[in-house]
Amino acid sequence: MDKPIIVGVMGGGQASAADARSAYELGALIAKQGWILLNGGRNAGIMEASARGASDNGAITVGILPDDDIARASSHIQIPILTGMGDGRNYINVLTSNVVVACPGGAGTISEIALALKNARPVILMNFDTGPIFDRYRRKGLLWLVNTPDEVIETIKGLTGSRNGG
Amino acid sequence: MDKPIIVGVMGGGQASAADARSAYELGALIAKQGWILLNGGRNAGIMEASARGASDNGAITVGILPDDDIARASSHIQIPILTGMGDGRNYINVLTSNVVVACPGGAGTISEIALALKNARPVILMNFDTGPIFDRYRRKGLLWLVNTPDEVIETIKGLTGSRNGG
Amino acid sequence: MDKPIIVGVMGGGQASAADARSAYELGALIAKQGWILLNGGRNAGIMEASARGASDNGAITVGILPDDDIARASSHIQIPILTGMGDGRNYINVLTSNVVVACPGGAGTISEIALALKNARPVILMNFDTGPIFDRYRRKGLLWLVNTPDEVIETIKGLTGSRNGG
Amino acid sequence: MDKPIIVGVMGGGQASAADARSAYELGALIAKQGWILLNGGRNAGIMEASARGASDNGAITVGILPDDDIARASSHIQIPILTGMGDGRNYINVLTSNVVVACPGGAGTISEIALALKNARPVILMNFDTGPIFDRYRRKGLLWLVNTPDEVIETIKGLTGSRNGG
Repeated sequence: MDKPIIVGVMGGGQASAADARSAYELGALIAKQGWILLNGGRNAGIMEASARGASDNGAITVGILPDDDIARASSHIQIPILTGMGDGRNYINVLTSNVVVACPGGAGTISEIALALKNARPVILMNFDTGPIFDRYRRKGLLWLVNTPDEVIETIKGLTGSRNGG
Repeated sequence: MDKPIIVGVMGGGQASAADARSAYELGALIAKQGWILLNGGRNAGIMEASARGASDNGAITVGILPDDDIARASSHIQIPILTGMGDGRNYINVLTSNVVVACPGGAGTISEIALALKNARPVILMNFDTGPIFDRYRRKGLLWLVNTPDEVIETIKGLTGSRNGG
Repeated sequence: MDKPIIVGVMGGGQASAADARSAYELGALIAKQGWILLNGGRNAGIMEASARGASDNGAITVGILPDDDIARASSHIQIPILTGMGDGRNYINVLTSNVVVACPGGAGTISEIALALKNARPVILMNFDTGPIFDRYRRKGLLWLVNTPDEVIETIKGLTGSRNGG
Repeated sequence: MDKPIIVGVMGGGQASAADARSAYELGALIAKQGWILLNGGRNAGIMEASARGASDNGAITVGILPDDDIARASSHIQIPILTGMGDGRNYINVLTSNVVVACPGGAGTISEIALALKNARPVILMNFDTGPIFDRYRRKGLLWLVNTPDEVIETIKGLTGSRNGG
């Protein structure tokens, strides 16, 4: 069986209304492509919004949780992976994703961008300006900056040759 | 959304023909219940056989791999979770499973039984005699010994109140 | 620099008075050999007793803690390694040890014996009868059963050619 | 026993001659304070240089290795902690450090800065300009920028009230 594409959507546990709306829309578009949505699994911020958008539109949703139980899991995550490893799970988030999308967030999100690039996973920044720190990875063709969920989808299609989940 | 039941199927990377047949049949029965199959994800032994049985019958299959790439993933695993953590991933296997089924295996499988019991996940031994070492957990109602895939399914139904994947 | 020998001492978070006494004595003897004591780092049971024995006699003591802070660390652990990974740290305990000594314990200790054997670390059971489950590893020369701290030390010397910490 | 201060020194697996010299000198100064040096443990770049500086001057050196064996460990690391967890070990590096010093590096080092700040470990950047991305943590009093090993030591003393290793 061809593995379906797994898109990791990272971002803050707190999100502005606009960022949450974009994350919801991104989740919805991922679902419509037949891709799997992966995120950090919690019922907060970008995680909750992207899981809800994907779940409302029929995607399989996978959450890689820092916890050893599901108390804080989003109700829109279908498959909660319980790591019991705190932020150690950030490494699993990015290894497992074919492509990582980073929405605005704090140090946790930045750690995921860095771990993804270190491990050669392409990263798409959506409305998240990280300054010049990762410039060498843009030159390597591993890092993109876009503004809208539609642009994220187009960028992923370019990276994966439009392979879908079917 | 109600989370679907995740059944973890553990067992050796090498398996006898009879054990592989049982693991295949168990995967098939898990699929027919609408449950999710989780295992260690590799293309060998009990992992390969149980993933194939589940996948052939329409289950979602999740593999928690020790590796940081999918080179050794079973082709019957739909969602490969790449941990890059070697046997450290055994802890994630059992935390994530609502019920753990242990087929015959070696020290890796025994570590998963032990970690499951330590973290209060019910364990069903299928044709795997571990001697008296875990007797205290049988008395606690966390450990069962059965002989057939059908008995595994009946035991899980008893534990979960027949909750299915819908 | 020659790496000093690291002896991992595993065992229950609860311990009988006799088992705690043996663990203390074992820690003391490890110190007198110039070896490093490693354990799970907590202020309870075999961990506390073995760390105290080693620390009272001048050993470097390393604790691999499940926690992300030192609140539950033994005061006799000089170097607390904070993993934040719960029982996921059991894998690190055994990988890091040149030899693993298992004192009586529950499922956590059994998981460490199993992970050690899986990863070819020699295991010495001190007054801990695990039944026949690991017999194949005795035949491979990876598993020993002894009764006293002195016998543990002699067994380690046999395994390591008496290499000491200097 | 008062725990000795553990200073984590992070930085690239490749280092310029000038950066390696600074890392060596920093290791030496950490040793002279009676502190413990912790790093990623490998025989390359900032890791090798800082371990050598510390070891040459009598410090205990702890390396948190990504590997499951010591093949790539620096010979100047006295206590190699084998995690077998790849970059997942970056989380352990920063949790375990009382203070993190970041020398110039790539995405791995940036992930460690981010994970440290996320988990409220103070970070001192030595000759490593990360741009504005972590500015909010400077305002919180968690992030410092300095130019020399001497300034690192002074900053750590300010943070810890000059507590030493004795």
